[in-house]
Amino acid sequence: MSTFKERLNSASSLHNSFVCVGLDPDPARMAVPDILEFNRTIIDATADVVCAFKPQLAFYEAFGIPGLQALEGTIAHIRRVTPHAIILGDAKRGDIGSTATAYAKAMFEVWGFDATTVNVYQGFDAVEPFLKYGDRGVFVLCRSSNPSARDIQDLPVEVGGTTMPVYRRVAERSEAWNSAGNVGLVIGATYPEELEELRKEHPTLPLLIPGVGAQGGDVVAATMYGLDKDGGGMLISSSRDILYASSDPKTYGDAARGAAIKLRDQINAAVQLWQASGGLTSEGGRPGV
Amino acid sequence: MSTFKERLNSASSLHNSFVCVGLDPDPARMAVPDILEFNRTIIDATADVVCAFKPQLAFYEAFGIPGLQALEGTIAHIRRVTPHAIILGDAKRGDIGSTATAYAKAMFEVWGFDATTVNVYQGFDAVEPFLKYGDRGVFVLCRSSNPSARDIQDLPVEVGGTTMPVYRRVAERSEAWNSAGNVGLVIGATYPEELEELRKEHPTLPLLIPGVGAQGGDVVAATMYGLDKDGGGMLISSSRDILYASSDPKTYGDAARGAAIKLRDQINAAVQLWQASGGLTSEGGRPGV
Repeated sequence: MSTFKERLNSASSLHNSFVCVGLDPDPARMAVPDILEFNRTIIDATADVVCAFKPQLAFYEAFGIPGLQALEGTIAHIRRVTPHAIILGDAKRGDIGSTATAYAKAMFEVWGFDATTVNVYQGFDAVEPFLKYGDRGVFVLCRSSNPSARDIQDLPVEVGGTTMPVYRRVAERSEAWNSAGNVGLVIGATYPEELEELRKEHPTLPLLIPGVGAQGGDVVAATMYGLDKDGGGMLISSSRDILYASSDPKTYGDAARGAAIKLRDQINAAVQLWQASGGLTSEGGRPGV
Repeated sequence: MSTFKERLNSASSLHNSFVCVGLDPDPARMAVPDILEFNRTIIDATADVVCAFKPQLAFYEAFGIPGLQALEGTIAHIRRVTPHAIILGDAKRGDIGSTATAYAKAMFEVWGFDATTVNVYQGFDAVEPFLKYGDRGVFVLCRSSNPSARDIQDLPVEVGGTTMPVYRRVAERSEAWNSAGNVGLVIGATYPEELEELRKEHPTLPLLIPGVGAQGGDVVAATMYGLDKDGGGMLISSSRDILYASSDPKTYGDAARGAAIKLRDQINAAVQLWQASGGLTSEGGRPGV
């Protein structure tokens, strides 16, 4: 059985793409009103130019049970159309052990996601039940892409005589918990310095990098700092720029495809730069951005 | 329109009870296999001796869409049987602003909960969309009840020259965000010293206190330290001790009622002690526990 990281890298290689499409259906912006129809069109239009799809559960829960039925149909459709794609359920669950066990069951057994995001405020208990699913990816929310990420994540903490921001401590703990080899980190592209620093400290953990496009993160920096030491191990996620590239019911699929190809190509051009600059050097050096 | 805090205190007064029943259906322990049937029996048996019900969403999501249909039926049943009870959806959601907006819609509009729990790792952006529902309670996860709560929450952070644990900073920020008067804190009964300290610093915020019973928290300390300066503003939550007081399909309702009454009475005895000792003094003094 492949490890999650191997599956992630295979999915990237297959389509020569690090693009993850965030499936965040917003009724105010969708070109057609039906969530499942909308998602199917987006999936069909982008399947061969991306490596992953990331439904954000909030956007389905906001429609109650019909929304969750659309999520079920969406997952089934991805499996049919592009069986090697990674399906990442973005839910950022986090709770005490018995509850986290139920959440892990929901994400990995009920929905059948290949990977998910988790929130670590409650510590190891909140993450451990997810880690037990050794073939699934568990992306710990480390440095989020939003403006107020700094409220808690930047607080300087002292650990064993060293002062570091909370998010670095979270990354350290996540690495320590990675005995099954299925831990990753979520780091927003909107904080490129932090991304660079974290990648140097954690050269092998897969990264989920949201925040390019509508949120303002730079694609070149996200790529140059996001690639692992072997030039893989990264998902760059975009939602709104792809989903809402057009509001025309006749052309939104093509427009989404165009936006996904553009992002793929921007990333791949940066990968070339990364390779030309020698990649992530053994000294943890910064590639010449 | 009543504020959330007024509604909470009315619900407590109506049944002279601070007990919140956590509705966490576990198929391995339920006396009957059907979630909705099980919950209805528990609700019918305890409605007049408690003030709130707290479905934990993980335990419904673990059953997929049928589980969420059972949650829908459970909420409807509570509204019918005991319309003044607080229904708190325990979900600990937390995400960037646009996503948190969708989660808030799900919790307050789709499910129609009176209150929910939120995770603040992403800062104010994650909480703000919930706060906009001014008549609903928003309990910020501050000091959780689980053993590994210390991993992140206890890290000493420096803020403006003062060093404090992360959870105290979270409480401080939560108080600062309370312009609509609907913020509360989640503080585990398993950490009575922290509960005492936080209550002194935040004498008016409603508290949701999990962790008594199966998790080992002491009821007397939870009550003495949990009451606000007016002797209210508190929910003491118990799940497993009530739900699984008996595994006999004929008697589990009666057993649950017995367990809820026992907890209610233990709390109310501690309330008497609290009153006799002068309550939470104006100096923030400790009642004589």
